[in-house]
Amino acid sequence: MKVSEPVLAEMRQTNQLFEAEVIGKRNTNGLDRVYTASARILPPGAPMITGRSQIKTFWQQAIIALGLKSARLATVEAEIVGDSVIEIGRAELTVGGGQILPVKYVVHWKQEEGVWKWNVDIWNLDE
Amino acid sequence: MKVSEPVLAEMRQTNQLFEAEVIGKRNTNGLDRVYTASARILPPGAPMITGRSQIKTFWQQAIIALGLKSARLATVEAEIVGDSVIEIGRAELTVGGGQILPVKYVVHWKQEEGVWKWNVDIWNLDE
Repeated sequence: MKVSEPVLAEMRQTNQLFEAEVIGKRNTNGLDRVYTASARILPPGAPMITGRSQIKTFWQQAIIALGLKSARLATVEAEIVGDSVIEIGRAELTVGGGQILPVKYVVHWKQEEGVWKWNVDIWNLDE
Repeated sequence: MKVSEPVLAEMRQTNQLFEAEVIGKRNTNGLDRVYTASARILPPGAPMITGRSQIKTFWQQAIIALGLKSARLATVEAEIVGDSVIEIGRAELTVGGGQILPVKYVVHWKQEEGVWKWNVDIWNLDE
């Protein structure tokens, strides 16, 4: 079932917080509003990471290691499954030197305290 | 909600077909029983691929390019969402020269004609 416009708008708010606050201002405390407390991320080049506090550490290190300057996220497909959402998306990450990394991802979204957040987040590079 | 044992057993059948028939015997026609007709895969190093016939071409080429000899898949977590399943898993791919690639993945499973199949499949390497 397709995701309704109001839910898509709420998902967009979460993504914008990641773009503007977490990456744009390097404020990883913003991740409290992006990931569920028990979220898992599956990053390329590292094992799976479980739990929001470990995920914050990952992003703190990744922002510095990559020289991550900006992120732009775009939903390609989103489907309601039960009380959650499966999303396929694309991201552009601008890193040190201005290089843009083309990223694709799958996120399993859940509501936590009424906020749509990333519960499982896996990505890889096109190239 | 956790996935019931009978459903896990059916998922295991699908995974075994991928391991034994598609990779083990290099018979990519077995993918008819593994992926839904409209499945999407998001492989590292390539753009998203849509539809089972394109996915067959991808695996035909990947098996040869990697010298893929065997695959072992293991479910790490699986959750029922609506009438589908979200799975986090691990794979070991044995490639040319005997090197073993440590892979992690997320699969969104759906039933097609009563068979549990991969509808969205994304993976990356730990290293």
